[in-house]
Order: sequence, then C-alpha cells, then structure tokens
Amino acid sequence: MKLNCDMGEAFGAWKMGLDDKIMPFVDQANIACGFHASDPLTMVKTVALAKQHNVTIGAHPGYPDLVGFGRRNMDIAPTELKALIQYQIGALKGICAGQNVKVDYVKPHGAMYNQMMANFSILDTVMQAVSELDATLPLMVGAVPESNEIKEMAKKYGLTVWFEAFSDRLYTDEGRLTPRKEANAVHASFELIEKQVIQLCETGTVTTGSGKTIKIHADTICVHGDGAHAVDAVTRIRSLVDGLNKVKAN
Amino acid sequence: MKLNCDMGEAFGAWKMGLDDKIMPFVDQANIACGFHASDPLTMVKTVALAKQHNVTIGAHPGYPDLVGFGRRNMDIAPTELKALIQYQIGALKGICAGQNVKVDYVKPHGAMYNQMMANFSILDTVMQAVSELDATLPLMVGAVPESNEIKEMAKKYGLTVWFEAFSDRLYTDEGRLTPRKEANAVHASFELIEKQVIQLCETGTVTTGSGKTIKIHADTICVHGDGAHAVDAVTRIRSLVDGLNKVKAN
Amino acid sequence: MKLNCDMGEAFGAWKMGLDDKIMPFVDQANIACGFHASDPLTMVKTVALAKQHNVTIGAHPGYPDLVGFGRRNMDIAPTELKALIQYQIGALKGICAGQNVKVDYVKPHGAMYNQMMANFSILDTVMQAVSELDATLPLMVGAVPESNEIKEMAKKYGLTVWFEAFSDRLYTDEGRLTPRKEANAVHASFELIEKQVIQLCETGTVTTGSGKTIKIHADTICVHGDGAHAVDAVTRIRSLVDGLNKVKAN
Amino acid sequence: MKLNCDMGEAFGAWKMGLDDKIMPFVDQANIACGFHASDPLTMVKTVALAKQHNVTIGAHPGYPDLVGFGRRNMDIAPTELKALIQYQIGALKGICAGQNVKVDYVKPHGAMYNQMMANFSILDTVMQAVSELDATLPLMVGAVPESNEIKEMAKKYGLTVWFEAFSDRLYTDEGRLTPRKEANAVHASFELIEKQVIQLCETGTVTTGSGKTIKIHADTICVHGDGAHAVDAVTRIRSLVDGLNKVKAN
Repeated sequence: MKLNCDMGEAFGAWKMGLDDKIMPFVDQANIACGFHASDPLTMVKTVALAKQHNVTIGAHPGYPDLVGFGRRNMDIAPTELKALIQYQIGALKGICAGQNVKVDYVKPHGAMYNQMMANFSILDTVMQAVSELDATLPLMVGAVPESNEIKEMAKKYGLTVWFEAFSDRLYTDEGRLTPRKEANAVHASFELIEKQVIQLCETGTVTTGSGKTIKIHADTICVHGDGAHAVDAVTRIRSLVDGLNKVKAN
Repeated sequence: MKLNCDMGEAFGAWKMGLDDKIMPFVDQANIACGFHASDPLTMVKTVALAKQHNVTIGAHPGYPDLVGFGRRNMDIAPTELKALIQYQIGALKGICAGQNVKVDYVKPHGAMYNQMMANFSILDTVMQAVSELDATLPLMVGAVPESNEIKEMAKKYGLTVWFEAFSDRLYTDEGRLTPRKEANAVHASFELIEKQVIQLCETGTVTTGSGKTIKIHADTICVHGDGAHAVDAVTRIRSLVDGLNKVKAN
Repeated sequence: MKLNCDMGEAFGAWKMGLDDKIMPFVDQANIACGFHASDPLTMVKTVALAKQHNVTIGAHPGYPDLVGFGRRNMDIAPTELKALIQYQIGALKGICAGQNVKVDYVKPHGAMYNQMMANFSILDTVMQAVSELDATLPLMVGAVPESNEIKEMAKKYGLTVWFEAFSDRLYTDEGRLTPRKEANAVHASFELIEKQVIQLCETGTVTTGSGKTIKIHADTICVHGDGAHAVDAVTRIRSLVDGLNKVKAN
Repeated sequence: MKLNCDMGEAFGAWKMGLDDKIMPFVDQANIACGFHASDPLTMVKTVALAKQHNVTIGAHPGYPDLVGFGRRNMDIAPTELKALIQYQIGALKGICAGQNVKVDYVKPHGAMYNQMMANFSILDTVMQAVSELDATLPLMVGAVPESNEIKEMAKKYGLTVWFEAFSDRLYTDEGRLTPRKEANAVHASFELIEKQVIQLCETGTVTTGSGKTIKIHADTICVHGDGAHAVDAVTRIRSLVDGLNKVKAN
C-alpha cells in the first residue's frame, strides 16, 4: 500500500498546503499543472522537492478554472478534454525533463476526477488522452466496486490503473464517498481512520455507513497536505502503513 | 533557405491567421503554446495540420499575457522565465506525442523574442531553459551580425541555433529591424521583398536603410500568415526561395 | 419592437463581429464585460461606438470562461453568481462613466442566459444581483410563454423585464429554441425570418416546429453581428421592423 | 493621520492577509479589484467586512498579472491603462452598490503604483482615468518631496490627492523608499517605526538613510496586513497614531 498526496497547489504569491513538511512521508505526489492551481515556477519547485525525497511524480491535470480551483463541474467536449489533459501532462513532463526526472503516472483533479468516476464515458476519454500521449503512464482512479469494468476499459487502451482509497472518508454501500454535507462523511477520530486503513490493507474491504462490508481494492491511499492536523495525521498513517506493508512482505 | 511562420494563434472562439492556407507553403510552423495565444484544442488542430503537410513543428513560447498577445515587455525573473519556457515546450510536446509527432525546435515569441535579442543575458536564460529540457532542440533566433557571439553562447549549452531573417523588414546598420513607427520599416512592394530574399540567399547580406551592405547569415526566413495579402506573398516567396535553393543545390 | 445585438466580443488582439457595421442598425448593444469576452480597452471602444450611434447600452455579463466563450455550463454557487454579475455590471458602468454615458439594462450571456431560462432559481439569483446593484436597470430575458411568472419574480425585486425573441430560430411548442443540432433549428431563408418578425410584431406569437401558434410577447428581437450575411440580414430586419413599428404607431 | 492597508488579496481558494484581524484597526481599506488579486466573491466579503467596521473603501486597481501579483513592470499603453483602471474602479463600485456603500478613493497597486511614482506621465494617465470616471474620488499617492508638482497635476483634473507614507521603510534623500535589497531598507525594530510615525505626525518629516531630515507631508500611513507580526504591529501603530491625533486636535 502506497500513500499519495496532492502537491504543488500554490499559485503565484499564494501558498497552499505544507508540501515541504508532507513530502518526506508520501510515496506519490500528485502535482498540479497550472489549470486549477500552480504555475510553472511552483511546478519547478514542487518537482525539485519530490526529487529530493525520491517521491514518485504524478501529473494532476484539472479543469481550466483557477478561481474555482477546478472543483466546479464544467461541460467540456471530449476532444477538448483530451487536449487539455495532454497539454497538462506534457507541461509537467517539460518541467521534469528540466530536472532529469520523469512523470510516472496521472491522476485527474477535482471535478474532472469526480465527473470521470460518475460517468465512465468521461473516464474513457481520460484514458484515451493518457494512452495516446504515453501508454506506459498508469492512471490513478478511485477505488470502487466496479474495478473490473475499469480494468477492462484500461486494457482496451493498454493502460495500467492504480486504485486509490481514502482513509478518512466514510464509504456508501455503492462504494462511493459519503457526501461531505452528511454527518459522519469524514472520520472525526484517528481511531476510525486507523481502522479503515488496516481493513483496506489486510482485507481489501471497507465498512460502509450502513455497516456493510464491501470489497474495495486499493493500491494507494490518498492523504491530505493541508489543514491544522495534516502533518500529524500523515506521519501516523505513514507509520501504520509501513507496519502493515512489512507484515505483508513477510 | 527555409520558410517559417507563426501558426496556431487562435484562442478559443477567436480566430487569427490563415493557417490552413499558409501551412502548405512553409517548412517550419512556430506553434503558440497557450500563454500569449492558443489553447490545448487549437494546439491539437494546428499540430494535425502541420503533420498533414509534413511541416517541421516548433514550440513558440510567449509571456503569460493573453490580452497583450505576449507583445508587452514584462520583468520576469530568470528562474520564472526558464520555468515558463519549459512548461510551454513540454505542453506542446504532450500535444505532439498524442499524434506521434515531435517538437523539432523552439522559437520565442513577441516581447520575449525582442527582449532576448536586445539583452543577451535573457537569451542566455532561454538557452539554459531549452538545453535543460532537451539539448537536441535547435533554438531559432534573430539573424544579427553578432552571430558568432550567439553561437559561442549556444555551444556552452550544447545547443544548435537557427538564424531567421525577415523578408519584408528594412534592417538598420546594426542589423536590427527598423522600428515599425519609422517610414520604410516594412517593405511596401514585392520587388523590395524579392530583392532582400535573393540577397539573403545568394550573398548572406542585407542592404540597410542607410544603403550599407551588412552580413546577416540566415537559415530561415519568417513569413506572415495574416493580413489581406498573406497567402499571395507567401506563395510568391515560396517559389522564389525554391528556385534559389535549387540553384544552390546544383 | 427594438433590435438588440451582442457587441464588443473582441478580446485583446482577436477580433469578432462587425460592430462598426452593425451598430448603426440596432437599438440596444449588449456589451461583453471581460469574463467570456472583451477586455477594458475593447469595452472603451465599444461604448464609444454605441454612444456615437445613440445606441442603448446593456451590460452583458458571462461566466468566467474566456476559452469557452462563456458557453459552457458551470456549477456556480448563487453567492458567487451574484458577485460576478455585480462585478461585471459595475465594470461596464465604470467604463461608461468615463465617457459620460450610462449602462441602461442587463442581459446575461451564453450559458448563464441558458441556465437562468432553464432553471428559474438561477434567474432569481440574477434578478437579486441586478436589483441589489441598481433596481432601475431592466433585465433582458428570453421571451417565453411563462412571461407572467417571470414578471411576478421581477416585481418581488422591483425590476423591469424586457423580453427578447429570436427572428431566425425555430421555436418548440414549449416556447424554447429548437436545439441547433436539429434540422430547421435556424431559419435558412430570409422569407422565414421575415414571416417570424412580422408575426412577433403584429400578433405577439410564433409558429412552432409542429405548426402550433403560441403566444410569445417580445419587446426586442436579437440579431447577430457576425457571419457572412450579418450586415445584410440586420439591415433588412431593421427596415422591416421600422415599417411595422410605424404601422403600430399610427 | 489615518492608517490604510491593502485588503481583499485572496484569490479563489487561496488566502492572503489577516483581513478580519486587521480591519478593526485601520481607517482605509485598499481593496483589490480582480486583476492582480481578488475575485468577485472575495470583493463582496471584503466590502462587507469594511462596512461592518466603518472603514473607508478604496479601489486598489493593479496590472493584469495574477501570477505576478501585479508586481511586475509591464509596458501598458496609456489608453489601455486608463481603461483598466476605470474597469476595476467600476467593478468595485458595482460590488459596493450591492451593499449600499461607496468607493471613497483610489490607490493603484504594486508595479502600477511604482511606475506612476517613478514616471509622472504615467501618474498623469492615472489621474485622467480617475477624473473621467468620478472626479470626486481622491487618489492616494506616495508622499514625496515633489508634492506640489503632484498637487498641480491633480488640480488640472479637479482631483484631490491623499499622500501616504510608510512607517517601516527607510527613506532615501530623494524621498523614495530604500530598495528592499539594501540593508536597513525595512525598519527592524518597533522603536524605529515608532520614531518615524511620531516624526511624520508631528513635523511632517522623515530622517533619511544618510541622516538628513526631509519634508514628507503624509495624510495616511500604510500598514501591512500579512506576516507573523502584522496584527501586533498594526495595533501598536493604531494606538500611537490615535494618541498623536488627539494631541493635534487639542
């Protein structure tokens, strides 16, 4: 089990996230590419930080909506969606090439991520965009019960998929995240987070809001790099996952 | 002698230039990368058009100034300039990879081009940006009498330079373009253009506004893709250059 | 019956529309405010042109989506929608004040217009935005059969509404525009346009695609300022409407 | 003597400054207008906060350079500069009208401010922009020894000027701010700040880096709303100025 985190979400003079504090504890950095956050210089600094800590670099393309942080649904035609994904991955590849490192995978951001998980025809367009550019780049998607369907789609494009789960979000019976407006949507205590991480690592399942146990295969867990307790939470999840990985390896 | 032209300068719903009419007649397309003009979908279409006509593809990075079309001088720090050049070249590489073609060279746009030709410390930063990303990419710069100095700088970075001259602009004794506000800055007749092209191809010189003959080595001539007479002018320059190249080859 | 037209849709170096050719023939200019098109200098020029021709000036606010020309649906929260409408109206008021003229009305653009006509809770937010800023500004909305419902909403905010119809679009039985992807969505001949204009002026009705006659009260007809035949079409509609208005006045 | 502070410099999801902590202690809020920082919703919130604390509202227009925070010099033509100043003031007026408050003055931001103070032909354009829009709006400019020259310029446009000084910056003999790259440019201790504030209030002078005393008439002192010690510094300067104002009133 790996840990991934959104990184490089500053924009010009504006800061966001505690990248330098969090980077040492994650395996995969999802680096914003300038459409929903970041700018070329921020990308240079974020790639340098990832390189320094030997963290795997992911392109984190988003919708062209800086003021909305790429979190607002937009009706973007498939040809344009493909184009703006390839543009953003390419841009990060350019920055990485300047530092002799590589983009290792792709994870869509925000509304693009949500819309592709809610509508697999959008996911299909995302896969096409990545595979046309470089089919060796794995695509990170949400860990959902329909993982086989997603793997079949990916196979069509010769793509690898990595599934990511959330440690601090309550899952619905459909294997989706409980909307944030509902109570219990976010695990309030570290005990609940710990329980979910252990269950994901040991049995590939989560316990839903209704008490059901459902199968959710995850390759990586998404952690958060901002908020008051981010560093504390990430270091604790890191220790926990390291321990569980060691057990598995033996 | 080659012909190069700025291409792909539309932006969203706004059109600019006669790309489909001009592309068949040029050797090198300088493709805008989204900072001073263009957007991902326009880049996809422009790359497809260049591919269709076997035209060499150049990244045409500009300042982040859409409303000013990248033509306004901006004080951009060297680290940021490097970053935004690498970002834009990478972005075009991403779009090209999606169509199995390559970015073949780099030519800065507008104020970035003018500032690097006026201040070689900026040119140095541009060279560093390109060489760090991919030192096999030639950099297209203005053909000026100081070509040896520029070649020395390029050698330091392992870069190739291509020099471009203008067919329709009057040169000063310093080998610079006469500012547009001055009379005679732009050749009004095709006879003057023709004369300058022949002179550049046959003797590697231009006749300046004061009547002097100065050495200006050019590998490529820049033509313009917009304006009422663009297509006519480009086809005539194409024929002329083809004839002169044939003579040289024999 | 008045004629209104979207104007000032250039952006920086990019042109759009034939404003100087069309302005003399319309009563109301819907002037873009910089979010989906235009920029401050273009607004200055467009306001000057409207002033020169004694054309009534409307603020034409849009979604913050230059590359999509404000035509893509976006999920924008009501508080933010209100803010960006007030911002854009204010901006045009600022430009107008610099030339001693006034903003006379408001007409939302593109996807904002479509979404408010499809979902009256969004129309409610638009009305609130305008009335908070200046309740003397009429709001131009689509002429639909539910005009009474819209007038009731407007009364709540002390607002006047102006209804606009389209001369060249086929209406559905619900009083909506037939989607452009369907055949016959746009009237191909001037005879059909002429017939629809006469019917709107004389009887306040349109004939729908299915052949029904429905009531559509219109205060103004929207004409188009771009396309090959724009000037010809606008001058013909102008003559036609002038004649019909004269008949009515007698 | 008043206190003014730059406010509302957030952008979308990105925060900046401690507006809610600082607003109670200042007299004048320079509110960003969306070109170098801020967005319509941030402006709505900032105006509401100023209104709540009865703080005078100033439009703080900047260059169109979000990623550079309006701090980079740009070559902007006078007609365009006028247009973008009127646009931004108007936009803030629109937001203010929505809350039944008014824009009370104008203070240019960042590079626009620096360029107009370094080149009075730019200051002339700024004055023209403001006076054309609304000549009752005072313009806040830097307190410099050439205050008479500036007042003469303003008289030509029927404008009032307010001069602002800095409490924490060392002045040169020319009455300009010592560049930040030089040692001592920023007063390191509150004692030095206090001394400068007292001197400005009591004698209308500052002591320069070389030890000279020069006349600098100031109507308002600029304080800073971000940084670790911002709140502490502002409250101390507030007390100090309140005391000095009381003495003067008696």
